[in-house]
Amino acid sequence: MGKKYVYNFDEGNKDMKGILGGKGANLAEMTNLEIPVPLGFTITTDACVYYSAEGEYPPGLEEEIGEHLAALEEGMGKKLGDKDDPLLVSVRSGARASMPGMMDTVLNLGLNDESVKGLAEQTGDERFAYDSYRRFIQMFSEVVLGVEGEGELKGKLFENAIDELKRERGLKLDTDLSSEDLKELVVRFKEITRRESGGDFPSDPKVQLGLAIKAVFKSWNNKRAVDYRRLYKIPDDWGTAVNVQSMVFGNRGESSATGVAFTRDPATGENVRYGDFLINAQGEDVVAGIRNTEPIGKLKEEMPPVADELEGIMRKLEGHYRDMLDIEFTIEQGRLWMLQTRVGKRTAASSLKIAVDMVNEGLLTREEALLRIDPYQLDQLLHPQFDPSVKVEVLARGMNASPGAAVGKAVFDSDAAERLGKEGEDVILVRWETTPDDLYGMIASKGILTSHGGKTSHAAVVARGMGKPCVCGTEALEIDEEKRLGRVGDAGIREGDVISIDGTTGVLVKGAVPLVPPGVTGDFDTVLAWADEVRELGVWTNADTPEDAARARGFGAEGIGLCRTEHMFLGDRLPIVQKMILAESETEVDEALAELLDVQRSGFTGIFEAMDGLPVTIRLLDPPLHEFMPDAVELEIELAKLKMTGGDPAEIEKDEHYLKSVKSLREANPMLGLRGCRLGITNPEIYQMQVRAIMEAACERKAAGGDPKVEIMIPLVSVYTELEVLRGEAERIIEEVLKEKGMTLEYHIGTMIELPRAALTADEVAKYADFFSFGTNDLTQTTFGFSRDDIEAKFLPRYLDRKILADNPFETLDPAGVGKLVRMGVELGRAANPGLKVGICGEHGGDPRSIMFCQEVGLDYVSCSPFRVPMARVAAARAALSAK
Amino acid sequence: MGKKYVYNFDEGNKDMKGILGGKGANLAEMTNLEIPVPLGFTITTDACVYYSAEGEYPPGLEEEIGEHLAALEEGMGKKLGDKDDPLLVSVRSGARASMPGMMDTVLNLGLNDESVKGLAEQTGDERFAYDSYRRFIQMFSEVVLGVEGEGELKGKLFENAIDELKRERGLKLDTDLSSEDLKELVVRFKEITRRESGGDFPSDPKVQLGLAIKAVFKSWNNKRAVDYRRLYKIPDDWGTAVNVQSMVFGNRGESSATGVAFTRDPATGENVRYGDFLINAQGEDVVAGIRNTEPIGKLKEEMPPVADELEGIMRKLEGHYRDMLDIEFTIEQGRLWMLQTRVGKRTAASSLKIAVDMVNEGLLTREEALLRIDPYQLDQLLHPQFDPSVKVEVLARGMNASPGAAVGKAVFDSDAAERLGKEGEDVILVRWETTPDDLYGMIASKGILTSHGGKTSHAAVVARGMGKPCVCGTEALEIDEEKRLGRVGDAGIREGDVISIDGTTGVLVKGAVPLVPPGVTGDFDTVLAWADEVRELGVWTNADTPEDAARARGFGAEGIGLCRTEHMFLGDRLPIVQKMILAESETEVDEALAELLDVQRSGFTGIFEAMDGLPVTIRLLDPPLHEFMPDAVELEIELAKLKMTGGDPAEIEKDEHYLKSVKSLREANPMLGLRGCRLGITNPEIYQMQVRAIMEAACERKAAGGDPKVEIMIPLVSVYTELEVLRGEAERIIEEVLKEKGMTLEYHIGTMIELPRAALTADEVAKYADFFSFGTNDLTQTTFGFSRDDIEAKFLPRYLDRKILADNPFETLDPAGVGKLVRMGVELGRAANPGLKVGICGEHGGDPRSIMFCQEVGLDYVSCSPFRVPMARVAAARAALSAK
Repeated sequence: MGKKYVYNFDEGNKDMKGILGGKGANLAEMTNLEIPVPLGFTITTDACVYYSAEGEYPPGLEEEIGEHLAALEEGMGKKLGDKDDPLLVSVRSGARASMPGMMDTVLNLGLNDESVKGLAEQTGDERFAYDSYRRFIQMFSEVVLGVEGEGELKGKLFENAIDELKRERGLKLDTDLSSEDLKELVVRFKEITRRESGGDFPSDPKVQLGLAIKAVFKSWNNKRAVDYRRLYKIPDDWGTAVNVQSMVFGNRGESSATGVAFTRDPATGENVRYGDFLINAQGEDVVAGIRNTEPIGKLKEEMPPVADELEGIMRKLEGHYRDMLDIEFTIEQGRLWMLQTRVGKRTAASSLKIAVDMVNEGLLTREEALLRIDPYQLDQLLHPQFDPSVKVEVLARGMNASPGAAVGKAVFDSDAAERLGKEGEDVILVRWETTPDDLYGMIASKGILTSHGGKTSHAAVVARGMGKPCVCGTEALEIDEEKRLGRVGDAGIREGDVISIDGTTGVLVKGAVPLVPPGVTGDFDTVLAWADEVRELGVWTNADTPEDAARARGFGAEGIGLCRTEHMFLGDRLPIVQKMILAESETEVDEALAELLDVQRSGFTGIFEAMDGLPVTIRLLDPPLHEFMPDAVELEIELAKLKMTGGDPAEIEKDEHYLKSVKSLREANPMLGLRGCRLGITNPEIYQMQVRAIMEAACERKAAGGDPKVEIMIPLVSVYTELEVLRGEAERIIEEVLKEKGMTLEYHIGTMIELPRAALTADEVAKYADFFSFGTNDLTQTTFGFSRDDIEAKFLPRYLDRKILADNPFETLDPAGVGKLVRMGVELGRAANPGLKVGICGEHGGDPRSIMFCQEVGLDYVSCSPFRVPMARVAAARAALSAK
Repeated sequence: MGKKYVYNFDEGNKDMKGILGGKGANLAEMTNLEIPVPLGFTITTDACVYYSAEGEYPPGLEEEIGEHLAALEEGMGKKLGDKDDPLLVSVRSGARASMPGMMDTVLNLGLNDESVKGLAEQTGDERFAYDSYRRFIQMFSEVVLGVEGEGELKGKLFENAIDELKRERGLKLDTDLSSEDLKELVVRFKEITRRESGGDFPSDPKVQLGLAIKAVFKSWNNKRAVDYRRLYKIPDDWGTAVNVQSMVFGNRGESSATGVAFTRDPATGENVRYGDFLINAQGEDVVAGIRNTEPIGKLKEEMPPVADELEGIMRKLEGHYRDMLDIEFTIEQGRLWMLQTRVGKRTAASSLKIAVDMVNEGLLTREEALLRIDPYQLDQLLHPQFDPSVKVEVLARGMNASPGAAVGKAVFDSDAAERLGKEGEDVILVRWETTPDDLYGMIASKGILTSHGGKTSHAAVVARGMGKPCVCGTEALEIDEEKRLGRVGDAGIREGDVISIDGTTGVLVKGAVPLVPPGVTGDFDTVLAWADEVRELGVWTNADTPEDAARARGFGAEGIGLCRTEHMFLGDRLPIVQKMILAESETEVDEALAELLDVQRSGFTGIFEAMDGLPVTIRLLDPPLHEFMPDAVELEIELAKLKMTGGDPAEIEKDEHYLKSVKSLREANPMLGLRGCRLGITNPEIYQMQVRAIMEAACERKAAGGDPKVEIMIPLVSVYTELEVLRGEAERIIEEVLKEKGMTLEYHIGTMIELPRAALTADEVAKYADFFSFGTNDLTQTTFGFSRDDIEAKFLPRYLDRKILADNPFETLDPAGVGKLVRMGVELGRAANPGLKVGICGEHGGDPRSIMFCQEVGLDYVSCSPFRVPMARVAAARAALSAK
C-alpha cells in the first residue's frame, strides 16, 4: 500500500498540522470532540509538495480522493452534481502555519446547469440557488481558470457584468436582482469565462473538483504566498493541505447567519467573547466588511439556543486547547456549524493578560503560560506607538530599525538637535547616516530618521541601545544638509517642520501623529516574575550612561554586560581627544589625558551608583582613533579651495600638516585596523587613564558606602598575549590606585570574544581572563567576512530573497558558523579556566531565538539594550523550559 | 642531590646543545673523539635561565663550579692565580644556536700582579706575559666591569692610553712596546679601571672567574643579543651556556699560530679546505683582520706535521658529523689544539653542491642531504643580486618585500613606466603605494619601490607574484608625484634618474649597481629531482599570464593553483569595465561584456596552452567593483574646483551624477564588502561572461589538439548556498558552450576557503565543491581581524618586538588559529566529500614552515608564485621526510 494522502476529518487530530495543515488538523480535532463540523476530508501537505515538484498528483491520490468523496457523499446522503439534491463542497487551502488570505479558496463547488435546479428545489429558494451558482462561476473562473481581465477591467469583469445588468434592468442593489436576472447573469458569466479562458466553463463537478484542488496546490507558490512566507520565515517546502468540505449556508434566510469570534478579547485579553456575526450572509461577507456586522453578544438576543450552543462550544474548545481561540461558524436555518478554530492572534498586552488569567483560572501552569508568550511581541509594549485609531498619511517608508514612535521638529544636524533640545523642543534628527560624532545630537533627539544605512547601521544600533525610535534607509528621502531640506518626491521638509516617525513599522509622516504610551501592565510584571523563577540565564544590559543603567535596572537588568566608553571621548571632550591624538610631545598627551581622566571618573561614578551592588562591565576604548578626527576628504576639499583662492600660505601649510596627520590615521578597512586592544598596546596611556578613572570612581563609591562591582573588559583580543600584556598593565594601575586610596576592592578583568581567532584559541585566552563576553556583532562580521555597514543595503536583502541566507545573521545568531565558534569558545574557555564567567553582549543578546542558543551552549548571562531586558527575561525563561 | 649545572667536556656530547650550548656540546664531542681540546667545563643554559630570572646563581652552582675548577686545575697540573705556574682560562658564551659576536668572552683570566710573574717565568717570555696581562685587564674591564668611557673616548679609553704611551716613548707600533712599557701599561690600565668603575681591579682569580661567568649570563639579555634573537627567531628563554677552558696561546712565537677553517668552500661548496691562519697570533687577530692572514693551504709549507694532523682531524670530523664544518684552532709552540667546531654556514649554491657531493661520496643518503638544505635560502638563487664585490652607498632602507635586484630609471606613475618600458628602457616604478590600477606599470617595470605599505602590501604581493624585486615601506623616501620627485633627506631623485634596488635586503641606491645573474646550477636540478621523488605534496603555482605560467612550469610547477582574473579587467579594458559598471541599460552591459569576452577568451587560451595537460585553476573575479573606478575623493576635489571657477553647469551636473555613481560603490570596509561570489550573485552577468570565456578558450585549445584541464574557482564563499547557486549557473553556461561547440570536456568547479565560516561549515560547502583551495591570506585577515593593508606598518612590528606575536602570520601560517580552521576545513570537507581535492593558494604556499603544516594536515598540493616553486619542491620533500 502506498502513502496515505487523504484523511477524513475523523481520522486526524490537532497535532497533525504537519500533514493536515492548521485548518484540517483543527477541523479533525473538533470532529473528535463531537462539535458539529460539516463532513469533509483533508488532502495532505505531502501531496502538495509532490505536486509542486512533479507537476502532477502523486500515484494513488486520484483514487484516494475518489474514495473519500464517495464516503462523503454517503455520509451526507447527497451526490456531487446530483440534479435532485446535489452535494456542494468548499475547497480550501490550509497550511501548517496560518497564512490568512494568501492562498486560494473555492466555494459552492458542484453546481452546474442541472444541479442548480436540484439545489433550488431542495432549498425551495431558486434565487438562492442561482445566486450561489453565479458566485461559484465567478470565484471558480477567477481562482481556478485565471480569468482576470485587463486594463481598467482587471479584476472587475464579473462585477461589471452585474452593474451592466442592473443598469439594463434599472436596479440599484444586488439584492434587487430576481432569480431570473441571476439566471441571465449565469449565462453572461459563462460567456465571459468562455471568451477569456478560451474554453467552456466545466460542468462536470468531478472535473471542477480536480481543477480546484490543483489550483489550491499551485497557489502555494503564488507571489503573495511566497512573500508572506519570506516575511514570517515559513519554509517553502512545507506545502499546503487542501480541505474538501460539504457546504453549509449562512445565507438561507433570517434563521441563518455567519460569524467569527475570539474566545477572549485579542486586543486587551479580557475574558469576554469577542467577535461579529451577520444574519443571512456567507462567511466572506463578514470579512469583506460590506455590511455592518453585529457584535457577538447580540446573538443571544437574535437566536438564544444557538447562542447558548456556541457559548458551550467555545467553553469546551478553550478548556480543551487551553488557549484563546479564534473561531468561524455558520448557522444554517437554525443549525450551528463550526468551520474553523485555531489559536487566536493577540496583541502583546492581551497575550500577557490571557496568560495570567489562564493561570489564575487553573487552565495553565506558569510554565505553560510562559511558553505561550511570543517574546518578540513584547517589544511593542515598551515604546510609545502611533495611536492606532488615527489614520495617518504615510510620506515615505524606511526600515523599522528601532521600535517606538516619536514626534518632533525635523533638524538636519546634531548641533541644531542639541540647541533646540536644550530649549525644550522635541526634535527628530534627520541625517543621511549618523556617525559617532552625532551621538550628542541623537541624545538630544526624540527619534532618528536616516536616508541611508540598514538595520545595523550606526543610527539603528545606537538608537536601539538608547531605546529611541529610528527609521533608517528611507530611500525616497533626499536630504540637502546645506539647505536644511528633506524632500520626498514633491513634498519638502524644512528644518523646524514637525514630522512623526514610527520605528516599529518604519514609517515617516509629515505633521504630528498622536501617540499612545507604552503599556507595561501589572500582568507583565507577573509574567516577568514567573520568568525569573524559571530562567537559568542571567539578563544583563548594555548601558553607557547612568540614565540607561537606571532604566535597565528598572526593567530588571542584573548587571551591565557592556558599558561602552566611546561617548566619553566625544561631545565636549572631542577637542581634548584631538589634542591628544595630534600631540607632538608627551607633555601634551599627559595634559589631555588628565582632563579626560576627570570627566571619565565622574561618568563611571554615576554608572556605579546606578548599578550599585551589581556587576558593571566596562569596555575600554574600542574604535580607531580616526573616528575622533574630522573627515579627511572634507579637509582635503577645504584645502584645495583655500589654495585656489590664494589663501594665506602660512595657513595653507598648517592645514597641510593637519591634513597629513588626519590622513596618516586613515585606514583601508577600519573595522580590521588599529583599534581595541591594539590601540591599548600602541597607545598604552589611554587604557591606563581609563583604568585609573574606573578605579578612582569605584573607590569614591565605596568610600561613600556604595558597593561597586568592577569588571574591566578588553576588546578585540585575537592572541592571548594581548590580554596577558594589557591585564598586567591594568593590574599595575589598579594596585597603584588602591594603594593611593588605601583601599581594597574586588575586581575582574576579562575580554570580548569577537574575533574568530579568540574563539579558536579560547583555551589560551581563558588563562588570562576572569570572564568572556561574546561580541557577536563583530564575530559575525569576521566569521562571514561581512562588513555590516556595506552589505546590509547592498546584498543582504538579495541573499534573504534568494534564500542564500535563511536569516539576517546580524539579527539572529548563525548557529552553524558563528554559533560553532561560540560553542568552541565556551568549551575551550571553561576547560582551561573552570571559574570563567561567560556572557554575550552582541545585539543577539536581545534576540529570543539567539537567547535559545545561548541557553543551549550554557552561557551564564545575556546582555541586551535596556528596552529589551523584559523580553530577554521571558525569552530566557522559555529557553530554560524548552531545554527541559 | 640537586640539578647538575656543570659538565666536564668529557661528560657531554654533540646532542646536548640544549643544555651545553653549541660550542660546549661540540667541544665535548671532540673530546670524546680524542681530538686535542684544551681541558675545561661547561656551565649549562639552565643556570643562565635561572640567573636571568632570579638575579642569582641557582643553589649549588657555586660549589659545582668550585669542584670542576679544582678538577681542571688537577688535570692541567696548574692552579688559577698560582704565582709560579698559573692556570689561565677563557670564559666564553655558547648558546644553543650560533649567535656570533653577540655575547661576551673573557680571555687570559687568572692573571694578577703575582701570577703574571709565574707566567713570565714558565714561558720564559716576560713580554708575552705582560702583554697577556694588559689585554686581560682591558677585556675584563670592558666586558665584565662595563668600563667604556664617554663622548669621544667611548670605547677607546685603553687604546688611547696605549697611543699616549707610544707617543711618550716615541714608538710607532704596538709590537715596539717593551715588556717594561707593558708593565707601565698595566699600571695605567688599572688606574683607568679604578677611575671609571670606582673600585680596584679584582686581583683574586676566583673573584675574576665569578664576575666573568655572571657577565656572560647577563650578556644573554644585552640589546644586541636580543635584537639578533628577534631577527633569527631564537627563543629568549633558551639562555646561554658558559664554557670555562684552559687557555692555549697562538702568540708564543713562530711555532705558534691560530686559524679558522671550513672543511669545504662555504661559498661554492667545492671539496677543498678553506680558511686562514696567522703565525704568532691570538684568535681574535684573525677575525679582526688586523694582519694579513695566510690561506690554510700554506700551513703545509709552514708546519707540515701540524698541517697533516689538522687535515686528519678535519677528515675525522667531517666523517663523524657528515656535514661541512667550521673549525677554530690554535697551535701553541708546535702543538695543535681545537677550540671550536660547528656545522658551517654556507651560501645556497654551496649548500646544494655539498649535498650532492656528500651523497656521491657516500657520506649521506639523498634524504639526509635534503634535510640539510635550508629551503628559505634557495630563494636567493632565483633572482639577480647586487654584485657582492662592489661596495654600494645605501641611500635609504625599506622592507625587503620581493627578492632580487633591479636597476633602472625612476618613474613616478604607471603611464610613464609603460611609455618608457615600451621604448625599451629599464624602469623602476616609484610609488607611495601601488593599487590594482598600477598593474600595467608594474608589468612594464624591472622593480618596484614604495614609500608606504608592508610586506603584504599590494606592491609586495604582486611583485612577489611576478618575481620582480620590490622594496616597500621606504619611510625615509618622500614622494612628490606631481613634481615627479623623490627625496631622501637632501638627496633628490628626479624622473629618469637611474636608481638600483635590492629587494633581498631592502636597499635603495642612487645610480647603477652592477648585478650578477641568478645561479641555478646542475646541483640544484639534482636536488630538485631527489625532492620530487620524496615529496607527497604537489607543487603548483599562482600565475595570471601565459608568461608566468610558462616560467613556473620551467621551475617544475605541476599546475596552476590560482589564476587571478583581475588584470583582465584592467589596462586597456578599464574603460569597457567602467562602461559596464555605470551602464544604465542591459544593452550597454551586454555590449561591454561582449568586448570583455573576446579579450578574456584569448587570455585563457594562452594560459591553457602554457599549462597544457596540467590543471589550471581560474578564480572568477574577486575584487569589489569600485577598484575599477576612479578615486571618489579626487573626483570630489575636481568637482569642487570646477564649481568654484564657475564651470559649465551642464558639465557640473554630469560630473555630479558620475561622482554619485562612484560614491555609491564606495565601501567602509571593502575587504568585507561586495566582492567575490557576492558580486557573482548580484551581478551574475560578469561570472557568466568569464565562465563562457574560459570554456570557449578550452574548446579552442582542445580543437587545436591541446589538453586543457579546467578548474573554475569561486571566491569568498561564506555559505554553501552561494556555491550551490553559482555552481549551478556556471554549469548551465558550460553545458551551453559545449553544446554550441559540439564537444565534451571534463571540468571541475571548486571554491576558495578564505573566510572562517567556510572552514567551519566545510562539510556543507564540500557537497558543492570538487576542490577546496585555502586562501590563507584572507583567512588570516578575517581570523585575526587584521587588515593587512593597515596593520603591517602600524602595529605588526610592535607586536613582533614585544612578542605578542611570534611570527608575522601573513608570512608563516598561524597554526593555533588559522591552522585550526584549515585543519577543520580539510577534515570536515573530506568527510563530506571523499573525492575532494584540497590545496592552498595563499602566500603561505611558498613558505617552507607553512608547507610543513600543509603536509601535516594532509593537503594535496601547495601553490606559490613561480619563483618560489623550486624552494617549495624542496620544502615539500623535507616536510614529507620530517613526517616519517
